[in-house]
Amino acid sequence: MPEIRKDPVFGRWVIIASERGLRPNDFRLGAHQDGSGHVCPFCAGNEDLTPPVIYSLPGAAGSWRLRVVRNKYPALTSEGSSDNRREGIYNRMDGMGFHEVVIETPDHGSRLEELSPEAMGEVLNTFILRVKEIKKDPRIKYVMIFKNHGRNAGASLMHPHSQIIAMPMAPLRVAQEIDGAAQYYLERGTCVFCDIVTEETAFRRRVVAENPSFLAVAPYASRFSFETWILPKKHASHFENMPENETGALAEILKDTLRKLSVSLPDLSYNLIVHTMPVREPEAQHYHWHIEIMPKLTHVAGFEWGTGFYINTVSPEDAAEILNSGKTFKI
Amino acid sequence: MPEIRKDPVFGRWVIIASERGLRPNDFRLGAHQDGSGHVCPFCAGNEDLTPPVIYSLPGAAGSWRLRVVRNKYPALTSEGSSDNRREGIYNRMDGMGFHEVVIETPDHGSRLEELSPEAMGEVLNTFILRVKEIKKDPRIKYVMIFKNHGRNAGASLMHPHSQIIAMPMAPLRVAQEIDGAAQYYLERGTCVFCDIVTEETAFRRRVVAENPSFLAVAPYASRFSFETWILPKKHASHFENMPENETGALAEILKDTLRKLSVSLPDLSYNLIVHTMPVREPEAQHYHWHIEIMPKLTHVAGFEWGTGFYINTVSPEDAAEILNSGKTFKI
Repeated sequence: MPEIRKDPVFGRWVIIASERGLRPNDFRLGAHQDGSGHVCPFCAGNEDLTPPVIYSLPGAAGSWRLRVVRNKYPALTSEGSSDNRREGIYNRMDGMGFHEVVIETPDHGSRLEELSPEAMGEVLNTFILRVKEIKKDPRIKYVMIFKNHGRNAGASLMHPHSQIIAMPMAPLRVAQEIDGAAQYYLERGTCVFCDIVTEETAFRRRVVAENPSFLAVAPYASRFSFETWILPKKHASHFENMPENETGALAEILKDTLRKLSVSLPDLSYNLIVHTMPVREPEAQHYHWHIEIMPKLTHVAGFEWGTGFYINTVSPEDAAEILNSGKTFKI
Repeated sequence: MPEIRKDPVFGRWVIIASERGLRPNDFRLGAHQDGSGHVCPFCAGNEDLTPPVIYSLPGAAGSWRLRVVRNKYPALTSEGSSDNRREGIYNRMDGMGFHEVVIETPDHGSRLEELSPEAMGEVLNTFILRVKEIKKDPRIKYVMIFKNHGRNAGASLMHPHSQIIAMPMAPLRVAQEIDGAAQYYLERGTCVFCDIVTEETAFRRRVVAENPSFLAVAPYASRFSFETWILPKKHASHFENMPENETGALAEILKDTLRKLSVSLPDLSYNLIVHTMPVREPEAQHYHWHIEIMPKLTHVAGFEWGTGFYINTVSPEDAAEILNSGKTFKI
């Protein structure tokens, strides 16, 4: 069973999950780079290679369009308690939680942004549905939705998929982000993300895509070259409470943004993360859910690790201009 | 000139340095992988390819053993002011600071741990000397010493070198670490790092190397597989105030630790970071300087970026056992 350990200095939690070291890796094997090679557990016909299905959307003639399965090599598992225990001067707990994989399409060689707007909307609706289901377990405090695309972003399988990890505490970085937003609200009386939407809509030069409900921007203090955030224009703190009639607009701007990134940066690796409030917290005036897309063009180095201080060689204004031009950027 | 921008939510600083995008990259060019290829600016005979030397140690017959030069593609430069300016709802300042490179040896194909203990001691003494010199500039609040080794650790040149970046503020992660240690001190009345030294010396199973002055351990909540910290046994908050007669012992344990890492993990990439107090702060009871070595066996993925929560597939107890066994670990 995985184990969660707390760093006594930072209060940072670490999952020690030895079993995950055994998971398959397309990139290590190098097999799927040319479309051939070893068997992909996420492809149609290989359903017996994954744990039993949790949720699926049927396709034509007994096939499926989307599947949700338990991660075969989970970072957290539903066994164990969420109790804290001491070990010498340290603290630990069982690695309790859920770790699910959303297989976005049966098509191995496709990319999320190549799905139809309807199919992308279904992926987003599936995220919402799973969060609502998972949060029924009273031990769960936070549900993280994310996607690793490409080798440099830490993906181990190429077949289009996202992940959902539910955990018994709000992670440190989430707590710090919410605290930062609360501090801003206390000082200025407004939501920092609402202010970003207003500022960027007026300034224009960092806008990557826009529709009536959402804004995609290269954030002012981008850590990574071509970093892009997607923010709902209307204030809301919980992703899973998004009105059903908005997922279409989110699918549209996400498709548009990922398409621009893949045109300007072919073979791009990226991490996509849904930032949202812990599931037990009420709607808050100071926090605003959003999506952060972090392209990984270079390796994060010692300076960044030591300082939490990032060095970015492409200004967000230049990044937005390049993405909107449809030109390819030479890394 | 580089520009420093502040994220309005986290308070995280980002350096926007477009010129750094132009720097040479051994790994991108792939030339030096086999020892041939393009010219290395850090090799003896190519001194005119780097900015003028700041400090050097002479070798035999007009040669040198070690050189310190200004980084040709600096993240921060000595021009500009350290004043904060507003830009819409955001804050920025000039990218003021110093960025130096310590070329550890004229031998291109060598590794830090292959230097003689005396030569490694000279590298450490050079770090101390440069920090003491740089901190004479009253604008400088923090001096970070770090080393990126290997492609996956974000190194751009293979020739053995370390970097020193001096900046006009204490970076967020440093402030958080010091705050965490202060909180521990407030609650328990002891230094958390002193307690780690005591706990690990007694427990033994996470000890990687030891001598009378220093302890190297796989930390309890290791974020990365084979992460190793080197701690002075005697409490001290500032690296640069280390007594001169201790650098030999530090060189010895650093050599021992890096050697064990390179035996068990051939072709390892790692980041090495000196964690120390901001240079203007007085000696503190709650903070204890140390070195963190972070091997990069896998890519950091979305979960880690989103949560600050790390998943590690090798427990620190197993890591210490493998490192002490002299056996090769299969990634």
